[in-house]
Amino acid sequence: MDLPPTDSLRSARGGDLPGAGDSASVLVSRADIVAAAQRIDGAIRHTPMLSTTLGSDDAPLWVKAECLQIGGAFKLRGALNAISLLDADERARGVVTHSSGNHAQALARAARLAGVDATVLMPQQTPAVKQRATLAQGARVVLVDIADRVAETERIQAETGAVFISPYDDPAIIAGQGTVGLEILADLPDVANVYVPVSGGGLLSGVAAAIKPVAAHVRIVGVEPELAGDLAEGFASGTRAVWDTALTGRTIADGLRTPSVGKANWHHIMELVDDVVTVSEDAIRSAMRAVILDARVVCEPSGAVAVAGYLEHGSVSTGPAVAVLSGGNVEPALLIDVLAGR
Amino acid sequence: MDLPPTDSLRSARGGDLPGAGDSASVLVSRADIVAAAQRIDGAIRHTPMLSTTLGSDDAPLWVKAECLQIGGAFKLRGALNAISLLDADERARGVVTHSSGNHAQALARAARLAGVDATVLMPQQTPAVKQRATLAQGARVVLVDIADRVAETERIQAETGAVFISPYDDPAIIAGQGTVGLEILADLPDVANVYVPVSGGGLLSGVAAAIKPVAAHVRIVGVEPELAGDLAEGFASGTRAVWDTALTGRTIADGLRTPSVGKANWHHIMELVDDVVTVSEDAIRSAMRAVILDARVVCEPSGAVAVAGYLEHGSVSTGPAVAVLSGGNVEPALLIDVLAGR
Repeated sequence: MDLPPTDSLRSARGGDLPGAGDSASVLVSRADIVAAAQRIDGAIRHTPMLSTTLGSDDAPLWVKAECLQIGGAFKLRGALNAISLLDADERARGVVTHSSGNHAQALARAARLAGVDATVLMPQQTPAVKQRATLAQGARVVLVDIADRVAETERIQAETGAVFISPYDDPAIIAGQGTVGLEILADLPDVANVYVPVSGGGLLSGVAAAIKPVAAHVRIVGVEPELAGDLAEGFASGTRAVWDTALTGRTIADGLRTPSVGKANWHHIMELVDDVVTVSEDAIRSAMRAVILDARVVCEPSGAVAVAGYLEHGSVSTGPAVAVLSGGNVEPALLIDVLAGR
Repeated sequence: MDLPPTDSLRSARGGDLPGAGDSASVLVSRADIVAAAQRIDGAIRHTPMLSTTLGSDDAPLWVKAECLQIGGAFKLRGALNAISLLDADERARGVVTHSSGNHAQALARAARLAGVDATVLMPQQTPAVKQRATLAQGARVVLVDIADRVAETERIQAETGAVFISPYDDPAIIAGQGTVGLEILADLPDVANVYVPVSGGGLLSGVAAAIKPVAAHVRIVGVEPELAGDLAEGFASGTRAVWDTALTGRTIADGLRTPSVGKANWHHIMELVDDVVTVSEDAIRSAMRAVILDARVVCEPSGAVAVAGYLEHGSVSTGPAVAVLSGGNVEPALLIDVLAGR
């Protein structure tokens, strides 16, 4: 946590975020991710890689249980990395973000550990369990209409001078989430396929940036709910798509309702990701039930989306597969419904 | 798996099992447990130690997630150790055991890995999920009335010459389960209290034998359902108690219905364990619900018993506490009921 920031990340944060038009040189590098791993070491869990019986003989399925990460989601990795890269002036001004929940909790925790004030804007429909967990970390929580969250965030930034920490569209966040990719390669060196859920694209960008430079043959697949399939549409057409939140808000996967991937994320995904697939709501529910009963870890709907991607689209590629269970923060009532097949 | 057996375990298995009248010299030693750990390394998971928010400030609660062990329970540790200690003649004759499920699956898996035939006698009321998992490991499964299981096991032994591998009353099993204790000390060196569920006493004996020789100050507490409180009764009176299975069969914790601890286990427990407490059925259900929602791992009722012990009796001792989540094999319908508070 106290190591100096790497030069490449500081300069990227200092200027505009890398967009679709930038050269490949602004991709987060594997060295950035290795530096992030060293920076956050000891403050996060190296989560377990669990075998399952859900795969086929020629494509066994493992799950990377980030639902067992501290705070119940992978998000702490990026948040710790981003907070540790702030300078003294930025720390004094505090941080602000908008998030449907897991990034919120993670940033609140990382800020508290570093003695930095945090304000989090949450969509009004955010599950109560995620609101409570964020408040418990000492953050100020502001509930907003999901369509207004960017404007409201900018208003608070202007009022308070707080530093905006994007949930995904930030090289420091991408590098932090990429540490998941380092652990996947370390724990399952013969991995052939990696399935990653996509919302803003921070996890997918980071995992791809960690794996591709040293294992280009590993197939990296982004998975989205059909009801929030903006990246699948954009990936097919070659132009980043933005979906109205009235559309993306329909999916049960409340962590994956972001209207589009970030600009930096789009760039990473177009450079590094092999495929993007979508899954139905029924597939998400049945993957969630299967994971809970087979791997014995609790995942939220967003966390099960990558497993659904494997189960619906995995037959196109053989070899060991890993699905990233991105989070496990779920309301008990929903957990019961899903287990009951409702 | 291929290391030679340790002399102390072979000689203990070669003669009668150590009983209550034997000297302390027949306790499984920490060296036996370290040897077991080396023997089974690579075939088991070093399961995660997960922090929870269920504890108090002066006695934070961690859970040792053996529900994430391969097969969903700690039992694989002892079974692998016991199978690896068989000689060539014993391997050729095969093994037999009786078990309510988790030892059954574990022995079946360990036997299959070693190319040894296994026969498992299961009580008729064993959950279907555990029967299926044992069959899936290639074992022969025989369903019996729980009261007849010892006699039936002896009959099969006589008929086939198979080697009986007790679920708990065997120094090789105790040494294998004791590897849980080594991992607890390694992962949480300042642990002050360890709560362990008790049925036959293999896990409790092993954990105590691993920890006490190097950390005598650590309080080791056995936890039983009130409805299967034979050890609590015996521990209080100083005489091993045996309860009718018509009594122990009442608890929801189907893994803890053994009528008494084994003789070797009794000896270890009287020498090494600090306290034995009991918990109500309601406490087991609510601990199970709390673990699933807080630690995000699925545990079976037997697996939640140690957490219930901490929650009901933990206030007597401060310092970091660990509850061993012994297993996670649970029928979906029961999981739903418990989550719904039914």
